Amino acid sequence: MGSLGKDDELGGLNFLDAEEVARGLASIRSHKTFALSVVIGSPKGDPVWPGRSGAVKLMTQDKGSYMSGKLQPLAGGLEYADDYVTMFLQGSTQFDGLGHTWYDDKLYNGFDAHTTLAGLEKASVLPLAEHTASGHAVLLDIARYRGKERLQKGELITLRDLLDCAAKQGTKIQKHDILLIRTGWLSTFYEEGPAKFYDPPFIEPGLVYSRELVEWFHDTEIPLLGTDTIANEVTVDPNNGIVLPLHSALMRNLGVVFNEILMLEDLAKDCAKDGRYDFFYTAAPLKIFRGTGAPVNPIVIK
Amino acid sequence: MGSLGKDDELGGLNFLDAEEVARGLASIRSHKTFALSVVIGSPKGDPVWPGRSGAVKLMTQDKGSYMSGKLQPLAGGLEYADDYVTMFLQGSTQFDGLGHTWYDDKLYNGFDAHTTLAGLEKASVLPLAEHTASGHAVLLDIARYRGKERLQKGELITLRDLLDCAAKQGTKIQKHDILLIRTGWLSTFYEEGPAKFYDPPFIEPGLVYSRELVEWFHDTEIPLLGTDTIANEVTVDPNNGIVLPLHSALMRNLGVVFNEILMLEDLAKDCAKDGRYDFFYTAAPLKIFRGTGAPVNPIVIK
Amino acid sequence: MGSLGKDDELGGLNFLDAEEVARGLASIRSHKTFALSVVIGSPKGDPVWPGRSGAVKLMTQDKGSYMSGKLQPLAGGLEYADDYVTMFLQGSTQFDGLGHTWYDDKLYNGFDAHTTLAGLEKASVLPLAEHTASGHAVLLDIARYRGKERLQKGELITLRDLLDCAAKQGTKIQKHDILLIRTGWLSTFYEEGPAKFYDPPFIEPGLVYSRELVEWFHDTEIPLLGTDTIANEVTVDPNNGIVLPLHSALMRNLGVVFNEILMLEDLAKDCAKDGRYDFFYTAAPLKIFRGTGAPVNPIVIK
Amino acid sequence: MGSLGKDDELGGLNFLDAEEVARGLASIRSHKTFALSVVIGSPKGDPVWPGRSGAVKLMTQDKGSYMSGKLQPLAGGLEYADDYVTMFLQGSTQFDGLGHTWYDDKLYNGFDAHTTLAGLEKASVLPLAEHTASGHAVLLDIARYRGKERLQKGELITLRDLLDCAAKQGTKIQKHDILLIRTGWLSTFYEEGPAKFYDPPFIEPGLVYSRELVEWFHDTEIPLLGTDTIANEVTVDPNNGIVLPLHSALMRNLGVVFNEILMLEDLAKDCAKDGRYDFFYTAAPLKIFRGTGAPVNPIVIK
Repeated sequence: MGSLGKDDELGGLNFLDAEEVARGLASIRSHKTFALSVVIGSPKGDPVWPGRSGAVKLMTQDKGSYMSGKLQPLAGGLEYADDYVTMFLQGSTQFDGLGHTWYDDKLYNGFDAHTTLAGLEKASVLPLAEHTASGHAVLLDIARYRGKERLQKGELITLRDLLDCAAKQGTKIQKHDILLIRTGWLSTFYEEGPAKFYDPPFIEPGLVYSRELVEWFHDTEIPLLGTDTIANEVTVDPNNGIVLPLHSALMRNLGVVFNEILMLEDLAKDCAKDGRYDFFYTAAPLKIFRGTGAPVNPIVIK
Repeated sequence: MGSLGKDDELGGLNFLDAEEVARGLASIRSHKTFALSVVIGSPKGDPVWPGRSGAVKLMTQDKGSYMSGKLQPLAGGLEYADDYVTMFLQGSTQFDGLGHTWYDDKLYNGFDAHTTLAGLEKASVLPLAEHTASGHAVLLDIARYRGKERLQKGELITLRDLLDCAAKQGTKIQKHDILLIRTGWLSTFYEEGPAKFYDPPFIEPGLVYSRELVEWFHDTEIPLLGTDTIANEVTVDPNNGIVLPLHSALMRNLGVVFNEILMLEDLAKDCAKDGRYDFFYTAAPLKIFRGTGAPVNPIVIK
Repeated sequence: MGSLGKDDELGGLNFLDAEEVARGLASIRSHKTFALSVVIGSPKGDPVWPGRSGAVKLMTQDKGSYMSGKLQPLAGGLEYADDYVTMFLQGSTQFDGLGHTWYDDKLYNGFDAHTTLAGLEKASVLPLAEHTASGHAVLLDIARYRGKERLQKGELITLRDLLDCAAKQGTKIQKHDILLIRTGWLSTFYEEGPAKFYDPPFIEPGLVYSRELVEWFHDTEIPLLGTDTIANEVTVDPNNGIVLPLHSALMRNLGVVFNEILMLEDLAKDCAKDGRYDFFYTAAPLKIFRGTGAPVNPIVIK
Repeated sequence: MGSLGKDDELGGLNFLDAEEVARGLASIRSHKTFALSVVIGSPKGDPVWPGRSGAVKLMTQDKGSYMSGKLQPLAGGLEYADDYVTMFLQGSTQFDGLGHTWYDDKLYNGFDAHTTLAGLEKASVLPLAEHTASGHAVLLDIARYRGKERLQKGELITLRDLLDCAAKQGTKIQKHDILLIRTGWLSTFYEEGPAKFYDPPFIEPGLVYSRELVEWFHDTEIPLLGTDTIANEVTVDPNNGIVLPLHSALMRNLGVVFNEILMLEDLAKDCAKDGRYDFFYTAAPLKIFRGTGAPVNPIVIK
């Protein structure tokens, strides 16, 4: 994407122009909608990257405030409940800003890593949120393709797997397609609990780096990659021990936008039922000023 | 909406079924997208209801963490920035859960106000976020209709104004239309500053209660009302001193979903330019468990 | 303490009058000071009661804010760093307000449990913080008495143990003495790590309920009990399965103030060295309005 | 304090050794105690430096959690209330760490300002909190000396004023005395409200820089300066427009510890009553790891 200009902060979202919106809309058949985010503040907890902590969601007022006389109703009798949250901006279903990760002191598009000091001056999530990510998307249900409920810890996905899965699904991957990959991994957290999910070493299943994979992303001009894992790729590359190499190869180098921690179960069931794995996807994360990332509840219309 | 069933927590969103999604999609012409939320953590501040405070958005790590040796790169060299927010869930562009406000100890659909204790057991924002709000929407640009940049403090909007504005715009309001009203008021905050915006008494302009207005919302089965004000209606009814009566008459009694604090300037300009004030609107707030409301970045496709 | 009056919110701190301050001061010999709190936001983590989470301490600005041009120095050249914390008020060394726990819908001194709605109207930590807790204190080093570095999970301490330990130490417990008990348990967290500390079932060692114990606290008019555990008593009474019975018997019923999560290692070493286990103790938690508890860094002068 | 060694992070607190503790204790007469902090989360608000915001203190659970069935009592019947706070660490009565402010890229004792990145590696509040500040203190009640309830905005205090006030009070300032200065200014916030307190331009009254003043602090080896203002000095020096020059001259250069936002009203009344303006002062801020500062509730015993 070297041609995008030295100020570019949108990366792959540049591909999602009006034409691509139209192509995505044209794939709609049933008009069923899906909201792909996880629940924030669930009693089951929030699945987060180690080192982050889950959201704390608290009431600032509720009926008890009135019962105890600490608040009086508004003139006319209205009462209201209100609440407050503290959370990591990447502590639930989220978009990464393209400058979220880097190496060699350069972010996406060559921006200096020192621009991250006290907030992302460049390649934050804000331009992504202003633009929205709207286009034609495909789901590759790797778990289903492998005949499993969910992939195991550290289980790998290669380019070959993607293409074979697409072929088996009868899904044609076209240029500029938004790519969603289902591993089933996130349901480990909700169905088997945090202890199982984080059982050390914490190694999520997912895409593994290869030169071919990266070239394919580049050639196919994939604007956005989303999965039902926290980090969108296998945590540690078993070939070389590198942690999160695709954050470098895809996000930092190519500008592929990452939409992590998706809840894909309902969508996948619907796709399995009608055999159609492509649809319209539209998502706009919160407009966080200088945010490294932001929560989002992406919408799919099939 | 008495027929919606005793467990209903969706209110007006029940109207937004597949058919209405299709009707909304059918209005798309240019495939231009708009993201309607305000910026969170802006240097200009966050416009919030008095008593709430703006978001505090902070880095948990950035390049400085590595420069000072407090963090080491991941194996392979990856570094990353991360951040954290504390905020009122209704401290930016947001959906109210239908149980957010009440009187006579009953929420929307007769739920007991005591169910709000320690979090909304009923009529929280969560079911709205699971369902999404997607359909055909119209913008009534009242400021433009009145030949103003923005309405003044406490300036009223009646049903007559809505209908006349629609007529003048050439906009036909149809059953189940999502209704967006532009007052221009929110730009007071960004262009003239908080001191002017909050200048006491704080009385936003907006819709004023009348029996006809409420009946019209009921008959037209408006699923969702959104404006560029904090509370979607004139703060205090000048006729009787009641604070926020439409939160009772529309939200609590009819189940009209409120989408507050919208930034409508770009959308309104585009509508003025091409003369088309209807479009597809889709929004999915964050899935906050038991939330009284939740941030959202609604998407419009024209 | 029935004679303290129906409005009393101080409980045992009523005993700590000027005379007791004088008695405490009179025990000072070496003028060495000890600060008994744990570190908040330590890289080792914050030891907290299950269900609470550790403090999140973040920079709002630092040198990086100036380096990246996000801030300019004040007129004259001054720059500054600033920070922010989110934490449970009982998430570190802390005083419980006397109304923190209850049963049968009555708090300490018969206050109605409904007064806790939206903040402690009665028996919060605030009156304790206004009064300060200052007096003569004794340390009973149970771990040392038992010849151990630290007590084991669930290890019990009885009244007999307290008295025998005191006798062996040559410590005379007098009326109105502040009572500090060292188990060594907290160092499990710092020296063996959270996994060991929280290894399920989480059962801290500590005092176990008996009628004699409670009567002794009552007769001796102990104003304050402090230990190096999170809950100041054995988590579950092995005799009957009751969780935290001394919170009821001592705090709720007698008004004994609880100072939990103390770091007693340095103090205990010094006591062992000079053989003197009594000293002046003074502590004033943060004045949190309606707080259930508040952080405190108690000071001992030997 | 050049002789304190290149690793020194205690500054003036080095002067407060056992001998000084003894000297302070020797001044105690009535054994009355005073807790000098402001209330956090007060309905009147929290007085903070512009740019900071007040504490947000919220319940995580209370009686309402049990009433609504969201929580069950512990085995045996115990119920409890718990709460949470988000706050600036310097958003109430507090100690500054000596590295809180700097110029020319050097903190107190020559530490590099880059050590503040992602938290104060050097001269944080932690060593102060470990050491405690305990010694002999004097109160100079400048407001009373000037026959006023409180100083006005920007009203200046010079060295001459300090000495004259001490003379008039009959107070002898000795080497190593902790110095508390009462302006009455903070009561503006509580008695006249935030609008009056922050009325622009925000210029607190207080000490004004002079070479003599700084030399006197140096010669007298004042370990700690505390006032009832937010910044311990006049906000802007009227002679040269420099903002907070004493943060440089006293804190950064000499290592004088700053204890800001003290509530001195009750203490001052008591001093006026008995004519004794010296006493024992002891304070231990929270042990915040790498904190720029930390809340504290200082204790005075007269």
